[in-house]
Amino acid sequence: MNSNTFGKIFSLTSFGESHGKAIGGIIDGCPAGISIDINAIQLELDRRKPGQSKITTQRKEADQVVFLSGLFEGKTLGTPISFQIMNSDQKSKDYSHIKDAYRPSHADYTYDAKYGIRDYRGGGRSSARETIARVVAGAIAKQVLQVLGVDLYAYVSSVGQVDLDVSYDDLDLSKIDSNIVRCPDETTASQMISLIDSVRKEGDTVGGIVSGLALNVPVGLGAPVFDKLHADLAKAMMSINAVKGFEYGGGFAMSKQRGSQVNDSFIDTPDGLKTKTNNSGGIQGGISNGAPIYFRVAFKPVATIMQDQVSLNNKGEEVVVKGKGRHDPCVVPRAVAIVQAMMAMVLLDHYLRNKTIKL
Amino acid sequence: MNSNTFGKIFSLTSFGESHGKAIGGIIDGCPAGISIDINAIQLELDRRKPGQSKITTQRKEADQVVFLSGLFEGKTLGTPISFQIMNSDQKSKDYSHIKDAYRPSHADYTYDAKYGIRDYRGGGRSSARETIARVVAGAIAKQVLQVLGVDLYAYVSSVGQVDLDVSYDDLDLSKIDSNIVRCPDETTASQMISLIDSVRKEGDTVGGIVSGLALNVPVGLGAPVFDKLHADLAKAMMSINAVKGFEYGGGFAMSKQRGSQVNDSFIDTPDGLKTKTNNSGGIQGGISNGAPIYFRVAFKPVATIMQDQVSLNNKGEEVVVKGKGRHDPCVVPRAVAIVQAMMAMVLLDHYLRNKTIKL
Amino acid sequence: MNSNTFGKIFSLTSFGESHGKAIGGIIDGCPAGISIDINAIQLELDRRKPGQSKITTQRKEADQVVFLSGLFEGKTLGTPISFQIMNSDQKSKDYSHIKDAYRPSHADYTYDAKYGIRDYRGGGRSSARETIARVVAGAIAKQVLQVLGVDLYAYVSSVGQVDLDVSYDDLDLSKIDSNIVRCPDETTASQMISLIDSVRKEGDTVGGIVSGLALNVPVGLGAPVFDKLHADLAKAMMSINAVKGFEYGGGFAMSKQRGSQVNDSFIDTPDGLKTKTNNSGGIQGGISNGAPIYFRVAFKPVATIMQDQVSLNNKGEEVVVKGKGRHDPCVVPRAVAIVQAMMAMVLLDHYLRNKTIKL
Amino acid sequence: MNSNTFGKIFSLTSFGESHGKAIGGIIDGCPAGISIDINAIQLELDRRKPGQSKITTQRKEADQVVFLSGLFEGKTLGTPISFQIMNSDQKSKDYSHIKDAYRPSHADYTYDAKYGIRDYRGGGRSSARETIARVVAGAIAKQVLQVLGVDLYAYVSSVGQVDLDVSYDDLDLSKIDSNIVRCPDETTASQMISLIDSVRKEGDTVGGIVSGLALNVPVGLGAPVFDKLHADLAKAMMSINAVKGFEYGGGFAMSKQRGSQVNDSFIDTPDGLKTKTNNSGGIQGGISNGAPIYFRVAFKPVATIMQDQVSLNNKGEEVVVKGKGRHDPCVVPRAVAIVQAMMAMVLLDHYLRNKTIKL
Repeated sequence: MNSNTFGKIFSLTSFGESHGKAIGGIIDGCPAGISIDINAIQLELDRRKPGQSKITTQRKEADQVVFLSGLFEGKTLGTPISFQIMNSDQKSKDYSHIKDAYRPSHADYTYDAKYGIRDYRGGGRSSARETIARVVAGAIAKQVLQVLGVDLYAYVSSVGQVDLDVSYDDLDLSKIDSNIVRCPDETTASQMISLIDSVRKEGDTVGGIVSGLALNVPVGLGAPVFDKLHADLAKAMMSINAVKGFEYGGGFAMSKQRGSQVNDSFIDTPDGLKTKTNNSGGIQGGISNGAPIYFRVAFKPVATIMQDQVSLNNKGEEVVVKGKGRHDPCVVPRAVAIVQAMMAMVLLDHYLRNKTIKL
Repeated sequence: MNSNTFGKIFSLTSFGESHGKAIGGIIDGCPAGISIDINAIQLELDRRKPGQSKITTQRKEADQVVFLSGLFEGKTLGTPISFQIMNSDQKSKDYSHIKDAYRPSHADYTYDAKYGIRDYRGGGRSSARETIARVVAGAIAKQVLQVLGVDLYAYVSSVGQVDLDVSYDDLDLSKIDSNIVRCPDETTASQMISLIDSVRKEGDTVGGIVSGLALNVPVGLGAPVFDKLHADLAKAMMSINAVKGFEYGGGFAMSKQRGSQVNDSFIDTPDGLKTKTNNSGGIQGGISNGAPIYFRVAFKPVATIMQDQVSLNNKGEEVVVKGKGRHDPCVVPRAVAIVQAMMAMVLLDHYLRNKTIKL
Repeated sequence: MNSNTFGKIFSLTSFGESHGKAIGGIIDGCPAGISIDINAIQLELDRRKPGQSKITTQRKEADQVVFLSGLFEGKTLGTPISFQIMNSDQKSKDYSHIKDAYRPSHADYTYDAKYGIRDYRGGGRSSARETIARVVAGAIAKQVLQVLGVDLYAYVSSVGQVDLDVSYDDLDLSKIDSNIVRCPDETTASQMISLIDSVRKEGDTVGGIVSGLALNVPVGLGAPVFDKLHADLAKAMMSINAVKGFEYGGGFAMSKQRGSQVNDSFIDTPDGLKTKTNNSGGIQGGISNGAPIYFRVAFKPVATIMQDQVSLNNKGEEVVVKGKGRHDPCVVPRAVAIVQAMMAMVLLDHYLRNKTIKL
Repeated sequence: MNSNTFGKIFSLTSFGESHGKAIGGIIDGCPAGISIDINAIQLELDRRKPGQSKITTQRKEADQVVFLSGLFEGKTLGTPISFQIMNSDQKSKDYSHIKDAYRPSHADYTYDAKYGIRDYRGGGRSSARETIARVVAGAIAKQVLQVLGVDLYAYVSSVGQVDLDVSYDDLDLSKIDSNIVRCPDETTASQMISLIDSVRKEGDTVGGIVSGLALNVPVGLGAPVFDKLHADLAKAMMSINAVKGFEYGGGFAMSKQRGSQVNDSFIDTPDGLKTKTNNSGGIQGGISNGAPIYFRVAFKPVATIMQDQVSLNNKGEEVVVKGKGRHDPCVVPRAVAIVQAMMAMVLLDHYLRNKTIKL
């Protein structure tokens, strides 16, 4: 069934196999009359694209976005915004050696089992190239949210054992893109880069964590029961390739704590009601309370490693999956753009949904 | 908009305020002709209901389910299954003292801000009483899945600092209900019960973790991109009251590991292709691979504590929220039934969705 | 799959078999803070209920609606509004004689073929008793629309060969309920009543047409492509039992006309831009233009007649379907309430959807 | 909100303004492993395209479809099928004279009112060019249905006063494309062609009716209440540009008839249970009964005529809309392909939905 659409009012339907002609999508439900900066969209794609630094895959893709509809004289028409990015780096080569092989911890086997057919030249829809469409839609959502004064950030807070153990309050968020790993603390960033570099030299991969942060979110976004704001954020983040966990506000640590420790007291301020602490992560009862929304997304190490691995093919025979190709030693520096994009889509969708609550 | 419906093919639409007449729902899309054991549904409700043991709230509710449609001569008709549970314990008392107060870390404030109106006699839709509807729908989904041979489990794996640090493989799952905290390891269970009991005596609350486990899930469930099986599980779990985090398979720990450590090698067995390890948590590329699906759900300590707390009312004035009432010192023993129910709904929904993939 | 829900933002999920315990539903997405008059809802139910006059079935049902959630102190909470109507007239009688029989032009056969199981005591979900839920939801939608100044009407414009061939402009709409057939022209109404009465005496049934009319609909409701306002009205009306056709504005007659005859010229008025004629039926390009929206809904004669009919049972054997029971000789006088209800739901849904088009 | 998607399991999301870069869409939920004949898709596009005969608009568009994803080695992958058709005939000309004008009975005014912005170079999304996407998706749905043995037909049964008053049983359906008006009766076809030609010479336009017919549809398609098979067909057809009415089976005529006349008696045949007559139009209780499904779709005359019309602009000032350009004197010969496409999408969607009814 229709499972390639995300969002209820502001929605993205994405398409494209990694080794097909193009990746792209259709954004529906974007409000009309919003000025869109195409360069800003391309900038987000550049943050996601391969080959951008020494710690990402050296595969080359221009990842240049083209819009086919929904924009007119620089503004949104309120009609579907269609876009595509051509897959330029698809060499016409011989794929027969991998045609039937199931790479460990990839989707090859499950896709074959589910569909009975598969574009064996690459990961098809399971490739992270699919996230290009999310970055485009998220970049547009972000521009709409900016009109409302909402600020979005995502940054790397952990690579392997290297942790950034600092609250969002104590970070200089303007520094996120000051380094290639996208960690706003420069000392930690250096350690992360070193770690990724050494992992890369070993032909291995390493996991990491991306933190998301939304400031100035209006009070009242989110739905009471199933579509709690954090539930939709969780789904959004867990739908990104290689993600294994999600937590928001006090997160998993709160499972070890006492109510008397973590309850967020209300205080009255000139700007209205606030909370002293923010263990709630800006969301109470599934609905935004105006405080910063923050969460963490755990990525596993990329399954494709530069080491030979013994595996099986679709006949159950042993095959050796060669450790070659051009893949990321650590996915989080590029994933920052994807986390931010998904956050933007969820928040804009709920902003628009909230407009229907009162007459 | 329609935000009280969960699931695309097998779906639950729930209703009910905590202090209204009833809680209930409509299940749509349940396959026709399935024999349903009403007693088994009531049994799951009893595992969720208040007052069931000394470590849960002493509030009394019979929580007796009544079905109004969709069942005939003991079988599902394939039509909407409507059910309700009357709210018996709603005393007609004076609520004026809490009418305008915002309890810390509750949804009072955000609901008021969003809707401009609120059933001030209790949590309304934000009350965990709403999860009754989920337990009923999940119990039915579980019975359908049992026809397919799928086995579902949920158990408490952590209360405060007391952890059950044992793989699901090494647990005797038949022991889950042998104790009131629903931890299958009896020594750990005793420690958890003691901890909850002492927290209760302090008038405080404590968080915990519920683990979910699904065995014999068919290969091929889950959708490739946005509706990955684990993304829908994440949303399902994060939509439960008081949940702050979700992880599956290797989870957050994988963010610290190397690809060479955690890749799951394929092996050929008489029962078909399997994996040696299961860091993938039974899901690869968003699609079930036939291995056990396991995940962990982190619950914060309940916000209602038996201690007076200073807070604000809807005029920004200070009020004291009294530490009285009958609430849970720790929610996880009762949450086990809810986690299991949501898991059942997600898996059945995806099972039915998967039937449409091939002609 | 979920097929018992109607509407995207303002939605109704309905339940109930004709001979089960109750009929009812859950309304989701109703705006918060709207005062609801329960008596006005019951009044609409009374217009639909059986036994209301000599020209309807003499079956007796109180059809008293009870609300279980979503309303508080007379206002909508913005949460799901659950309601039910008990089936009081279900006599515990012997159904064995009709258990396996397929009544001509009923859904018995197709339901059996689709589901493999059926509540053989009556029509189950295919019974027009299901429309009770629509009338309740529509009555609430109508009250919300009244706040916006929208006026809704439905009336009988044809019974068998007796036609009301008068434009809505020339009708006294206050007369709709002045007679039992609900035709605002009294002379025509008398003829219709006579016809129905004579058809009833013959043990036969006769078809008819219900006209719908919406005044003061805001400009801009409707979506451009698939969800055109009239397409959603068509679906709404065609989903009512016994409906065989739908037309709006100039309707089928326009298929015989010339563009130069039927184009609606724009005129400038103190109240803004209007059209001289209204062949467009208040909708242009799928979007309301502020002119009256009008349409016609064709109902076939009820399939249950008071004459013996030869039919088949589920073994392919001949059986005689007895012409007994209490059924309507003509469905349109009661259908007026249903047409009006579905119109209200469609218009409110699109009103709320339209709130998300601009930021 | 998402309003450019049609279908629940087999779905089309369409995009494109008439004077933008391209028209296209994404098909989601198409079953995997189905062989697709691209030429057959192009053939359907050619039946819809402008300039195909002397009785259609002389505008020239190649309307060549390109696929970007979802197909591999000639088969469907089960992943989104993305396609596009470039708008080749968009001359860069001066649109300033029509920029602010509201053409009579067009969507110019309502779009402006709804969105506050509009691609004034043409009809934008309200242009019938949008239906290109439907024809592509329908052509694919038709190929999937052909695997199941379902046969689909659409033909012109009326142009202005020229009617084809013959049952589908008595038509040679192989003759549909033997003439340029697509009426299977050659005598009637000649009359229709003459009429369109004379209307064209007068600079006027004329309406007409397209009939749809589906043979060998499996029993059991359709949902019981809101998503009745004919309700979804009605919505599909009413969403096509210029459609004013829909009827199926006995249609509007049944509103004038008696139950004793029109009930369809069951008969037992070697091929299973059938009905003697088919006033039900192959659908009973909203569910297909295996008999031919037939319906009629009424199209108004095209609003664009070759005569000058006085109208208003967006300031309420009088303007003359010039009768120039290249438009269709009658839309039905080209609409045949669109009606057939929408029918295919509805039937395949319900076929797939029906797979989830039994375990």
